Amino acid sequence: MTHRFENHDLVTEHASQMIDVTDDVRQVVERSQVQNGMAVVYSPHTTCSILINEHEDGFKADFADLLERVAPAVGAYYRHDDLSVRTQGIEDETADFPNGHSHLRSGLLPSSQTIPIVDGRLTLGRWQRIFFCELDRSRKRKVLIQVIGE
Amino acid sequence: MTHRFENHDLVTEHASQMIDVTDDVRQVVERSQVQNGMAVVYSPHTTCSILINEHEDGFKADFADLLERVAPAVGAYYRHDDLSVRTQGIEDETADFPNGHSHLRSGLLPSSQTIPIVDGRLTLGRWQRIFFCELDRSRKRKVLIQVIGE
Amino acid sequence: MTHRFENHDLVTEHASQMIDVTDDVRQVVERSQVQNGMAVVYSPHTTCSILINEHEDGFKADFADLLERVAPAVGAYYRHDDLSVRTQGIEDETADFPNGHSHLRSGLLPSSQTIPIVDGRLTLGRWQRIFFCELDRSRKRKVLIQVIGE
Repeated sequence: MTHRFENHDLVTEHASQMIDVTDDVRQVVERSQVQNGMAVVYSPHTTCSILINEHEDGFKADFADLLERVAPAVGAYYRHDDLSVRTQGIEDETADFPNGHSHLRSGLLPSSQTIPIVDGRLTLGRWQRIFFCELDRSRKRKVLIQVIGE
Repeated sequence: MTHRFENHDLVTEHASQMIDVTDDVRQVVERSQVQNGMAVVYSPHTTCSILINEHEDGFKADFADLLERVAPAVGAYYRHDDLSVRTQGIEDETADFPNGHSHLRSGLLPSSQTIPIVDGRLTLGRWQRIFFCELDRSRKRKVLIQVIGE
Repeated sequence: MTHRFENHDLVTEHASQMIDVTDDVRQVVERSQVQNGMAVVYSPHTTCSILINEHEDGFKADFADLLERVAPAVGAYYRHDDLSVRTQGIEDETADFPNGHSHLRSGLLPSSQTIPIVDGRLTLGRWQRIFFCELDRSRKRKVLIQVIGE
């Protein structure tokens, strides 16, 4: 079994940004020299997600609107942001950057994607791209890319 | 490590159709002769999803209603379908078949499912079936089935 | 290739309960002695889900509220619960415990999570915990934990 693992740094710019990491994943597959196996693309964050969809700006904006309808960033009450009741996981910056909506959005969306590798290539369809999706604000992030196979 | 990969053709009939592909996956597991490992069931399309749930027609209709509430097919504005602003991924049939809602639905739902294989069998629970879910219109589709293990 | 599979019993107490199973998964990784590979955490139930998020009680309550908005437990009509039309999967207790909303919620949420293992450790981020999420009522449940690697 061959195993390759890479940890790529990202800096996101705004909420709901989708960063196309398809080429990052392809490069790890190539460096692994795995012919048949799978790639796991993983977010180690609780307010990010890994998505597979079309690289089209209209879709990205539509999806940001959908997330805002499902779990609004403003105008909704979240216990996660109510420091009069919250006792867990409080840090210096918690009060300044309420992100209860970000946790809800990430709860609905996948933390990882698994993609088969066949004959040395990801089996992505013609329109499929892999996105790292920021569900909080501009932050330093990591995307973990693992390839396993032979 | 043993690896088996099959590409099964499907023809979907209508939006929100769930096609039970459990037997397809079981057959690939059997042909692979893998005793312990995992199966990945993958959709290479940006407007389909792979789901695991109960094979019960009422649930399927309820789920179609839920998707219509979350991302309506009619009566909502999607930038993805607005050819006065869209510049990416336009094909001959794009104008005739607006599918912004399909992309949103697939953004919320998984592109794949990973199921353990133990003692030569998928660890599906009693009521669990694997579905290929059409989120656009009737189309020719593919479901990719990969088995890895020993 | 090393393979380890464990089946852990749980008893859930109420709808939307999130049971932290991170330590269960870590123990299976340790017992497997796998250094590089992956862990699959899998729910064999059609009305449960496996989530990765922060262990914070406010978030958990916010998420329960979100699920109630998306697929209400009371006051909504579900064909799955209408025994005047349903013909499939009916058991003695089906009439007493309508759970159409539970199936919808599980349709939107993942049945499993896949987490890379590198140098003998899960690559979970600082705030990430793995939860078994009950989407129906108090029930006996199982969480399947599989580790594959070398």
